Amino acid sequence: MAARTPRPLSGYPELLPGEQVVEDHLLQVLRDVAARHGFAHVETRAVEPLSVLLRKGEIDKEVYAVRRLAEMTAGTATGEGAEGALADDVLALHYDLTVPFARYVLENAGKLLFPFRRYQVQKVWRGERPQEGRFREFRQADVDVVDAGALAPHHEVEVPLVLADVLAGLPLPPLVLQVNNRRLVEGFYRGLGVEDTAAVMREVDKLDKVGPERVRASLVGAVGLGEREADAALRLAALTADRQAGTGFVAAVRGLGVRDDLLEQGLDELAAVVTGVTDQARAGGVGEDRFRVVADLSITRGLDYYTGTVYESRMTGFEHLGSVSSGGRYDALADDGRTTYPGVGISLGVTRLLVPLLQRGLLRASRPTPTAVLVAVADEEHRPASAAVAAALRARGVATEIAPTAARFGKQIKHADRRSVPFVWFVQEDGTHEVKDIRSGEQVAADPATWAPPAEDLRPSVRWEGDAPA
Amino acid sequence: MAARTPRPLSGYPELLPGEQVVEDHLLQVLRDVAARHGFAHVETRAVEPLSVLLRKGEIDKEVYAVRRLAEMTAGTATGEGAEGALADDVLALHYDLTVPFARYVLENAGKLLFPFRRYQVQKVWRGERPQEGRFREFRQADVDVVDAGALAPHHEVEVPLVLADVLAGLPLPPLVLQVNNRRLVEGFYRGLGVEDTAAVMREVDKLDKVGPERVRASLVGAVGLGEREADAALRLAALTADRQAGTGFVAAVRGLGVRDDLLEQGLDELAAVVTGVTDQARAGGVGEDRFRVVADLSITRGLDYYTGTVYESRMTGFEHLGSVSSGGRYDALADDGRTTYPGVGISLGVTRLLVPLLQRGLLRASRPTPTAVLVAVADEEHRPASAAVAAALRARGVATEIAPTAARFGKQIKHADRRSVPFVWFVQEDGTHEVKDIRSGEQVAADPATWAPPAEDLRPSVRWEGDAPA
Repeated sequence: MAARTPRPLSGYPELLPGEQVVEDHLLQVLRDVAARHGFAHVETRAVEPLSVLLRKGEIDKEVYAVRRLAEMTAGTATGEGAEGALADDVLALHYDLTVPFARYVLENAGKLLFPFRRYQVQKVWRGERPQEGRFREFRQADVDVVDAGALAPHHEVEVPLVLADVLAGLPLPPLVLQVNNRRLVEGFYRGLGVEDTAAVMREVDKLDKVGPERVRASLVGAVGLGEREADAALRLAALTADRQAGTGFVAAVRGLGVRDDLLEQGLDELAAVVTGVTDQARAGGVGEDRFRVVADLSITRGLDYYTGTVYESRMTGFEHLGSVSSGGRYDALADDGRTTYPGVGISLGVTRLLVPLLQRGLLRASRPTPTAVLVAVADEEHRPASAAVAAALRARGVATEIAPTAARFGKQIKHADRRSVPFVWFVQEDGTHEVKDIRSGEQVAADPATWAPPAEDLRPSVRWEGDAPA
Repeated sequence: MAARTPRPLSGYPELLPGEQVVEDHLLQVLRDVAARHGFAHVETRAVEPLSVLLRKGEIDKEVYAVRRLAEMTAGTATGEGAEGALADDVLALHYDLTVPFARYVLENAGKLLFPFRRYQVQKVWRGERPQEGRFREFRQADVDVVDAGALAPHHEVEVPLVLADVLAGLPLPPLVLQVNNRRLVEGFYRGLGVEDTAAVMREVDKLDKVGPERVRASLVGAVGLGEREADAALRLAALTADRQAGTGFVAAVRGLGVRDDLLEQGLDELAAVVTGVTDQARAGGVGEDRFRVVADLSITRGLDYYTGTVYESRMTGFEHLGSVSSGGRYDALADDGRTTYPGVGISLGVTRLLVPLLQRGLLRASRPTPTAVLVAVADEEHRPASAAVAAALRARGVATEIAPTAARFGKQIKHADRRSVPFVWFVQEDGTHEVKDIRSGEQVAADPATWAPPAEDLRPSVRWEGDAPA
């Protein structure tokens, strides 16, 4: 009906079948690892009341509201309620998985067992300007632990280890996990005598984008800090420049001469997370060449629901993509007036990480279809004989397709070859069977009740095609 | 921050973790079966331009339009364009997976290999009035074959067989697949001398809802049929009452005395599909007690892109849910002005089928968490020893959790018991290990490098809890 070729929508990436094989492999590893760590799967609806989403911070203008067309064309609903303000019951697409999860925890608190460990893998939507690694629709994979009342600090070590294990199972570049602690930063500013610590954090958060000169100007100008305080705030953030490995940062921070109890608490917490994640990742067999943990005192995360530990991470060689996995501890996001449910979580930006690698041809699937065997069809009357072979192979888990037409065998083999399907099966006139490996040309007698392809051919595999090994 | 308990949104079902285990099991079986049949996975973005969605039929008022909040609050975009008409670039959430897939095929035709076999499992959105089995956000799983130019009829036999295999792998009630053919129905009406055959189809489609008396009145009144033609149309649809098994329907239709070439073509096609699906399902080991195929001459499907074979299916004992799996052949849905891409597909209403069974407690997971083993913690200083056990078990695929607190062991065992986690692991003071099956109470020495739970305890399993076996 549409007599023209549709064009892609900017910011809404879609994958070709071979690229989808790569994402599916990543997601399968992710689900397996999350399950092995005892995280239950949860999925929330795609929409939340706007009031729930707008309560959480700076992202307001990026939210997509959703309205039934019937209401819109009736002219009654433009997103504004009767009073001209945005109505409470307007629904909007979620922009992350943490806020919906917090709502889910409150809604189902009586039916969940705490501490509650869940993973969640879903699309989210943000109306940002599309650019490399930034999309309007993209998939995130989150792992969180939430408890009722109090959350033990060892969970802050636990969630990045899931990420380390996911990475260990995938052919991806190494990851550097950057950890900071909001209490440390807030305590430091307090120790400097700063009152509006949030304003300082917001300015320092722009360091990457605008550089230290302009941040300093804003701190002294708009925020009203003294020269000495502004310099100290920048010196703290700069303790990142050398990517403080281990706990060397503790002495370095103390060397700045600021004293504050909250700062001390933050230093202890950060040291415990950096040490714990490093040690346990090594003990779990994930080498430092694959996953490295550093304290980075410039990181505070834009979303203002984080209260303690915060995580970001950069993929080596792809630092320009920004953080591909972020998260932190949130003590006050879920609260029903009787109980608070503090949590800690980390989110992997699946689309942000994957699409740039796919576009560069750095990750490739061995074939764009699950099919391992194409059963040739001698002529249409004998299609049932080929279908019987396919049924027998499928019953033992071998992905099998029947040739769509009874073309000459050369053409049927080409059908398989174009899809990188490794094997073609022939039912002979005398009722015997042969299977051909079309890569080697080798053709052998085979029994549909027992034959199986080599394990490495059973499913499509995923390879890293870059120069450096990943 | 939200100091109250949020309430569920009507029409937007969410699952508890134990229910999610059931859905995940169904989806895993579905993905495995689709792959075994050689279908590649495709995922499309959640939104389409409104113009693409509105071209396809009767569903207009149920579509959800999507707008950036920034645009809405600026008062510039209410869904109407500058000229007052709906702007072409308004985006809306897809209401099915067939229309987006047809668009994907056109967009990527140069990069796909035809016939192209794909499966797709995604949420869709419709602004319908919520009721049992009808939701505003729900998951569908589609399997389609699309070819360039011409599509071989054997694919109309192939796609329902995927459904049969999915069903064979799941503890669900039996399914009755109802098949009809639009050419048969249209030919029959033409043979009666009816000109506006689509109008007759629309009225007959209401049989289930309003009954034959009112349909007859509309046919004679609004549509303008003669008494004889109206009665004949109803007699054709009634050839369903006895659920025409096999190809008995061919003689029954001919007995109605109508002659038309298109009718004959439709009869041949329908007979071939009913016979083919029945035979191959049996040959593939799916018994008639699980999956039965009948010709149902009342079915035409609401969506007007179907051109030949149409499918619906009812779950035995749950007929009131309506069709849980529907589809058909569409010859003209994808057309770029040079090439037409005819297709055939079937869609399983995952949420529609599953949520009513879950709400009745008819499907249950053995536990609401993947965890098979809880490693007890003697005291916080020895947490690393427990973490080392967990790492060793996880490395061999055993889902393992570490006790969140070093409470007394009785409390730690209760933590496992409440989650139906079958095993608790103890690191003894002398460095040896023991594992306890908390169901039997049996506790034995074990080595974290070699011990594994019995296969049936490794992952949560899903059981049918109804009276009749499913």
